[in-house]
Amino acid sequence: MGIRIGILGYGNLGRGVESAIKQNSDMELAAVFTRRDPQSLEIATPTAKVYSVDDAEKMADKIDVMIICGGSATDLPVQTPKYAKYFNVIDSFDTHAKIPEHFKAVDEACKSSGKIGIISVGWDPGMFSLNRLYANCILPDGKDYTFWGKGVSQGHSDAVRRIEGVIDARQYTIPVPAALEAVRNGENPDLTTREKHTRECFVVAEEGADKARIEKEIKEMPNYFSDYDTTVHFIDMEEMKRNHSGIPHGGFVIRSGKTGHNGENTHIIEYSLKLDSNPEFTSSVLVAYARAAYRLNKEGQTGCKTVFDIAPAYLSTLSGEEMRAHLL
Amino acid sequence: MGIRIGILGYGNLGRGVESAIKQNSDMELAAVFTRRDPQSLEIATPTAKVYSVDDAEKMADKIDVMIICGGSATDLPVQTPKYAKYFNVIDSFDTHAKIPEHFKAVDEACKSSGKIGIISVGWDPGMFSLNRLYANCILPDGKDYTFWGKGVSQGHSDAVRRIEGVIDARQYTIPVPAALEAVRNGENPDLTTREKHTRECFVVAEEGADKARIEKEIKEMPNYFSDYDTTVHFIDMEEMKRNHSGIPHGGFVIRSGKTGHNGENTHIIEYSLKLDSNPEFTSSVLVAYARAAYRLNKEGQTGCKTVFDIAPAYLSTLSGEEMRAHLL
Repeated sequence: MGIRIGILGYGNLGRGVESAIKQNSDMELAAVFTRRDPQSLEIATPTAKVYSVDDAEKMADKIDVMIICGGSATDLPVQTPKYAKYFNVIDSFDTHAKIPEHFKAVDEACKSSGKIGIISVGWDPGMFSLNRLYANCILPDGKDYTFWGKGVSQGHSDAVRRIEGVIDARQYTIPVPAALEAVRNGENPDLTTREKHTRECFVVAEEGADKARIEKEIKEMPNYFSDYDTTVHFIDMEEMKRNHSGIPHGGFVIRSGKTGHNGENTHIIEYSLKLDSNPEFTSSVLVAYARAAYRLNKEGQTGCKTVFDIAPAYLSTLSGEEMRAHLL
Repeated sequence: MGIRIGILGYGNLGRGVESAIKQNSDMELAAVFTRRDPQSLEIATPTAKVYSVDDAEKMADKIDVMIICGGSATDLPVQTPKYAKYFNVIDSFDTHAKIPEHFKAVDEACKSSGKIGIISVGWDPGMFSLNRLYANCILPDGKDYTFWGKGVSQGHSDAVRRIEGVIDARQYTIPVPAALEAVRNGENPDLTTREKHTRECFVVAEEGADKARIEKEIKEMPNYFSDYDTTVHFIDMEEMKRNHSGIPHGGFVIRSGKTGHNGENTHIIEYSLKLDSNPEFTSSVLVAYARAAYRLNKEGQTGCKTVFDIAPAYLSTLSGEEMRAHLL
């Protein structure tokens, strides 16, 4: 029997976890928990069952790790500490500013239940954070840059959709090539928000809507667009579905640093992701860390962890010998 | 008092460790150990002493971590297990095929002395290995690619220098741009040795030497050059010193993998380094892991470890709270 995974929440992320589990032969999907009517949910794994989220606690001895696939705004701050009372839990909490308080809540719940919780797993936070940490430790005298994209920002797409006269919208965040190039060349530029990223919107407007007004509202929207150079394209629904139905994303974490007695040598460390599906990649990271959660708890460890606290070997199905022979 | 570091071997790598320690305020260089006459060695750290390597054992209570800066061919297989009897040790052993036996020897020595040894620390093996491991765990259905360069290969430069009529030589390994591009596009190409890298040699020949013969000998040299497309440039010693005295290197680790129930989404994870000084960067990685060695041993851990076994947080001077607030 493999590591028994539960999925709590069956949206894009939950479905991504389900398909990622199929790629990991040491794991099996035990159950999906939903706030919807369990009868209404069709899942892709015939051997797994669907339950109401209200029945989750009863399954404490049937699930080794519960992957909490809710949203960061309102779901995870409640769900992750709540289910840490019964399960090893893992989430992709991504509200950077609120990580300290989320960590504390999950840590307390895990310590009283004897479980492991791993929070903020994914790519940012997650793999990008790891690469920031490693690069900072190697090059203490240096500067960090993170660029996002090209990719779909759900938050910005939603903001455009809320404008009167907009039927549908997709917003792409795009790194500015010249800024990326300057960073890669070790020039250590000070970049404004506008110099780092541009924003591109594809908008389906209602018939007869005032497109000039919509474009103006987008470009001047505070926080979301006003600090950026934004391009707006009006398209029809057919083109939206044909060309913009994916959820690609990605980005770049770069540290530029100096070594030598007089800082005479420059080094560039770059980590980048180019992802066809943001939720499926995030899910794949979650599943790898679910393996770590299971093992750490088996060893008797408890409490909240992040990607910083977990030795990479815990993520792998390979033995130490195999890893050293084939990957080192 | 900071973590007291010893350097054993004062070549390019040892000097790199010395300058890296200056960038880490929680560390101090306690002593340099040399096989040369200690009187003959001038080091850059006035507060540190130089000793004969024969006196190293006597310093067991004065050094927290000994960084062994010898060569992988003959020095490290002897030195790392030997000094693990007295010190926490760390090395950059890079003979991939012999890592399993080196690990075993260091592990036995460390376990009997109660010390920590960390082997094969640097960028390949080291950071490249870590990135291969993380990417393999996240994308189990995928393919790995490692490209090296553009950078100086010491082994290939030495091989050219051994040819009759050659006074000095520098060999650069260069990734083939088209191959890199195909990998980044997710094409998963099967690449031959020749298709992945080219080699470029800069050679200072003796006056009157038969340059056509030298060029032919280089290009046909088995193992080193015969499987590659090689370019040879004859230059004078002045140009060699002016343009080729650095030791730059770098490279790319790329994993291309698929997710989704039918593998319908492709993801590219890429890690790259562009290094002005190969030994100084390797040294910087060694120093970060020396911090981990010290802490792990303080916690009571013993035995041989690699980068796979060490949680990233052990490398950082920041507290868990600081890391989560600023880097996650």
